[in-house]
Amino acid sequence: MNKRGMLIILSGPSGSGKGTIVRRLMQQRKDTVLSVSVTTRSPRPGEQDGIHYYFKSHAEFKEMISKHQLLEYAVYNGDYYGTPEQPIRELLDQGKNVILEIEVQGAEKVMDFRSDLVSIFITVPSLKELERRLRERNTETEQSIFNRLEIAQKELSRAYRYDYVVLNDDVSHAAQSISTIIEAESMRYPYMENYILEVMKRA
Amino acid sequence: MNKRGMLIILSGPSGSGKGTIVRRLMQQRKDTVLSVSVTTRSPRPGEQDGIHYYFKSHAEFKEMISKHQLLEYAVYNGDYYGTPEQPIRELLDQGKNVILEIEVQGAEKVMDFRSDLVSIFITVPSLKELERRLRERNTETEQSIFNRLEIAQKELSRAYRYDYVVLNDDVSHAAQSISTIIEAESMRYPYMENYILEVMKRA
Repeated sequence: MNKRGMLIILSGPSGSGKGTIVRRLMQQRKDTVLSVSVTTRSPRPGEQDGIHYYFKSHAEFKEMISKHQLLEYAVYNGDYYGTPEQPIRELLDQGKNVILEIEVQGAEKVMDFRSDLVSIFITVPSLKELERRLRERNTETEQSIFNRLEIAQKELSRAYRYDYVVLNDDVSHAAQSISTIIEAESMRYPYMENYILEVMKRA
Repeated sequence: MNKRGMLIILSGPSGSGKGTIVRRLMQQRKDTVLSVSVTTRSPRPGEQDGIHYYFKSHAEFKEMISKHQLLEYAVYNGDYYGTPEQPIRELLDQGKNVILEIEVQGAEKVMDFRSDLVSIFITVPSLKELERRLRERNTETEQSIFNRLEIAQKELSRAYRYDYVVLNDDVSHAAQSISTIIEAESMRYPYMENYILEVMKRA
């Protein structure tokens, strides 16, 4: 009665802390893994193929697009980034839960044509708090802070597309909330059907 | 940002331990209460009106039926039992989660015309284990044990109607599972919408 894993989309505004939360969650749940993206950009020092990214040439990436091997993809700074479908399918078949940590636009593309997933939107406690976090980085200009808050506000207005909303007031609390959602979702009828069929056998 | 409570249907075969699990859950969660049924049967020693049941005359009960004040009702041994709608609505408005502990047939009647609820099916680990529990009571004849197992098997085949399936292998584990479901469900978008609207305010 090996259970199939569940596909989980984790999204939210830039600065909501998605990445940090996912890394914390990975430490706690051996049944849950992060999907590895495909990119055409060059590996940075220390980055390993298949661990941080699958590194591909532009030609290879375009072949993956034309063969419909990507759940979604996008271009940043002239480089392609995408979510490959096959490794995800293999992990799900092995019973692993797979997390896609993905920007709001990419997340909606995936949700548009897949319904067999759990979607979680991470929110900051307030835009004021997001502004504070951005200023703390000391790398942003006034204009870029303004732009980022503008984008965050637009992204927050898309939260209704998601199954769940998790507040990131504290990393370990947010990771625990996602873990609670995974626990609950694994008790949904489709995951329990084989169990029920076993129970029903007399004798 | 006071949240509305959620309506939870808890059902499962007779002998699945619904009642024991609910009592354990009540001790742990102050935000969750058990719906009180209406009945025409006479109070037993120690039973209090409004706590164990709402005790009504046959005429009063029939008036409640005709005024559509019951979510569902049924007759056992010539007495009526039903689930009154108004106290549930009041508790939900106060932000309490309300549990309906209810037989499989009654549960389906409620699910047929309400979608704003979370439904949980409690299962025994096996029919063999249910048989053992029934024999342990020492009050059942062979025929009644046979009948009860037959009914339990039919009821298990209705589990697909429910959102969640919880295994009662252990009372405190099962109560914890329901608590996990309540935690996760309270992060669903509709419960978080007011929060998101607050976050989106700049200023």
